Amino acid sequence: MANWLATLDRRAQLRARAGLTRRLRPRGAADGAVDLAGNDYLGLSHHPDVTAAAARALSEYGLGATGSRLVRGSTDLHDALEAELAAWLGAVRSLVFSSGYLANLAAVRALVRPRTLLVSDAHNHASLIDGCRLSGAETLVTPHLDVAAVDAALAAARGRPAVVVTESVFSVDGDLAPLAALHAVVREYGAQLLVDEAHALGVAGPGGAGSVAAAGLAGEPDVVVTATLSKALGGAGGLVAGPAELIQHLVDTGRTFIFDTALPPAVVAGVLAATRLARVGDPLRIGDRPRSGDHLRTGDHLRAESARRADHAVQRLRAAGLVVSTPAGAVLSVAAPDAESAVAWAASCLDRGVAVGCFRPPSTPDSRSRLRLTINVGVPSADFDRALDVIVATAPTAARTAMEETG
Amino acid sequence: MANWLATLDRRAQLRARAGLTRRLRPRGAADGAVDLAGNDYLGLSHHPDVTAAAARALSEYGLGATGSRLVRGSTDLHDALEAELAAWLGAVRSLVFSSGYLANLAAVRALVRPRTLLVSDAHNHASLIDGCRLSGAETLVTPHLDVAAVDAALAAARGRPAVVVTESVFSVDGDLAPLAALHAVVREYGAQLLVDEAHALGVAGPGGAGSVAAAGLAGEPDVVVTATLSKALGGAGGLVAGPAELIQHLVDTGRTFIFDTALPPAVVAGVLAATRLARVGDPLRIGDRPRSGDHLRTGDHLRAESARRADHAVQRLRAAGLVVSTPAGAVLSVAAPDAESAVAWAASCLDRGVAVGCFRPPSTPDSRSRLRLTINVGVPSADFDRALDVIVATAPTAARTAMEETG
Ligand SMILES: Cc1ncc(COP(=O)(O)O)c(C=O)c1O
Ligand SMILES: Cc1ncc(COP(=O)(O)O)c(C=O)c1O
Repeated sequence: MANWLATLDRRAQLRARAGLTRRLRPRGAADGAVDLAGNDYLGLSHHPDVTAAAARALSEYGLGATGSRLVRGSTDLHDALEAELAAWLGAVRSLVFSSGYLANLAAVRALVRPRTLLVSDAHNHASLIDGCRLSGAETLVTPHLDVAAVDAALAAARGRPAVVVTESVFSVDGDLAPLAALHAVVREYGAQLLVDEAHALGVAGPGGAGSVAAAGLAGEPDVVVTATLSKALGGAGGLVAGPAELIQHLVDTGRTFIFDTALPPAVVAGVLAATRLARVGDPLRIGDRPRSGDHLRTGDHLRAESARRADHAVQRLRAAGLVVSTPAGAVLSVAAPDAESAVAWAASCLDRGVAVGCFRPPSTPDSRSRLRLTINVGVPSADFDRALDVIVATAPTAARTAMEETG
Repeated sequence: MANWLATLDRRAQLRARAGLTRRLRPRGAADGAVDLAGNDYLGLSHHPDVTAAAARALSEYGLGATGSRLVRGSTDLHDALEAELAAWLGAVRSLVFSSGYLANLAAVRALVRPRTLLVSDAHNHASLIDGCRLSGAETLVTPHLDVAAVDAALAAARGRPAVVVTESVFSVDGDLAPLAALHAVVREYGAQLLVDEAHALGVAGPGGAGSVAAAGLAGEPDVVVTATLSKALGGAGGLVAGPAELIQHLVDTGRTFIFDTALPPAVVAGVLAATRLARVGDPLRIGDRPRSGDHLRTGDHLRAESARRADHAVQRLRAAGLVVSTPAGAVLSVAAPDAESAVAWAASCLDRGVAVGCFRPPSTPDSRSRLRLTINVGVPSADFDRALDVIVATAPTAARTAMEETG
């Protein structure tokens, strides 16, 4: 017993030496920091329609769902949200989970049959990787965005069921998977394509319906979409969208669906309101410090502003000599020389009132450290510009050198 | 592609023939049914202190946490809840997850070292089973409640790290693991004991601190506790409680902690209020139709009422010839002859306004079907008594025969 605590301690010391210790930094309700770290891309978590819908459901339904979806957890709100999400995504049906993580675990497993080969992008999110592991299926990891490697994997597995697993907008660098090309390959071999739209839903695609819709693949019978309700929709929870047969299969057999307490009704109600705002473009007021210039009126306007800011950020940071990813949504990354200087850089930003993400192993797909920046249009645009200045001013010298070397 | 949909369809037909098709039945805010199905054991999901705390946090923090715990998701509310839960459980530290499911996945994995043997009770919850699978460790399933089998497994694995994994109050039958005996064995072999207190927290033990505390094992360095915040605490979320080294290990490396959006601040605030009510016994008002006889004043009083009702239910149902488990908390099960008659029985109950759980494969640990009944002290006691009458009146004849055969 002392034994295992000693082991944990030893491992902690190794992490500390490698600059990989993590510390929770609780924030208050109004921490004053300019948020370039969170995933509330459209600013909907604070939208008055969203919080009002949640508050109403809270008083009507109470705090929790009190049971799994199949026992006491399904409410008319869950039903309405599932219908709304399916319509938005152009899918036959959708199913809401208590988190995107659990939705991914269920989706991968549901697609696996005997002898299935899973073909998984090297940058996939932990929940997809765990989904592959938990499914028990053979999994081949292909290089990031490499369609030829996927093609070769499917060719070699001809005659076996196969599923290609990818994100659309990737979570750390914000780059985009070649969905149309992947689907063409998948179609050729009679395989399936599973796409995690966590960072695309609400941000990318026509009416915010995501990158699958943008690629013209919405509703295709060999495409299954997962997403989370915790990012552009400002809440919590996850979803799987696809053919009716798949959704019924998940209802009947999905372990992380059947054996998990349902998403709280108040969260469902808030996300439903957010979905309607993001989708049909009702008038929006954004930002906690409303200024006339920041008042944008519809989901589409919010997305246009998000794209404008993303372009601006890339230009500003690259002009300063930093190595910046090419964002397809509202996420981008800036390379850091190493884990320790990434931590120091993020801390300097926070000291100057700017919250940024700091990604180090094991949270980066390639064991390189970087800052992760998000475009949250709820942030007033002057604050956003100032935040970019702070990031540039606090950049370690080696972060620029790195650019000259690789660029 | 048509191929995999056809496969799903074929499997659905097999399930239909075996009476294993599931249907979501969304309920409204006030569905009028007497709730013997949900896990809101202390009625706290509707407690005015709980919903008020959640509503306040909703307006202050917005709907979602907007990021993972390590990025933007940790608030002072998460911090306060973790301190409160650790103090309650007598643990050094605790860590809140977005669900009990994800907490279990993390806890099992964190305890696994090279060559670890996991020894898992045959009735363990899906999330513990998935945790064992995902950890990659060799797992030995021992018969339900069988301490001698655990002892033999540890003896055979002498010299290897080992973890005994169990629930305390089991989720379907509500029976209790022999925690003190298991711990004695674990201690003898220098192993660890992981206990899922999902159905015990708030219900069992001194001040509702759970069955581990009741067994005198709180704070032992070789005991790790997990639980969910979605049952007696009326909300959502999960927790791991144990030595500081373990919690730091989870913060640094727990995949379902690092790569998952934090529990919404409003849910955290509601659960914190519920914890205080359950723990220190502040004055409580319960039931949505308050009657003087149902006004109980403290967590301890609620637990006393729960125990009284559990005793009464067992007596009433056994007197009617039904086969009833022996509940250690607020859950009990009644054997059904088969899956189809279990479904029909539950449907008859619902027709008469009584919601009960209906557990069929794969949701039962032993592939036998049963009704699962919960004691929710938020239900007025006259309604509870009437519900028992309904269950008896609608029981299939074979449910009684079963008793005569086995009893
Ligand atoms: C790509 C991706 N998939 C899934 C998830 C998990 O979603 P959730 O946080 O709702 O569990 C996340 C982030 O958390 C993500 O970035
Ligand atoms: C024993 C047990 N552990 C874990 C869980 C999972 O908790 P949650 O619903 O919070 O994911 C449940 C029920 O859902 C359970 O019954």
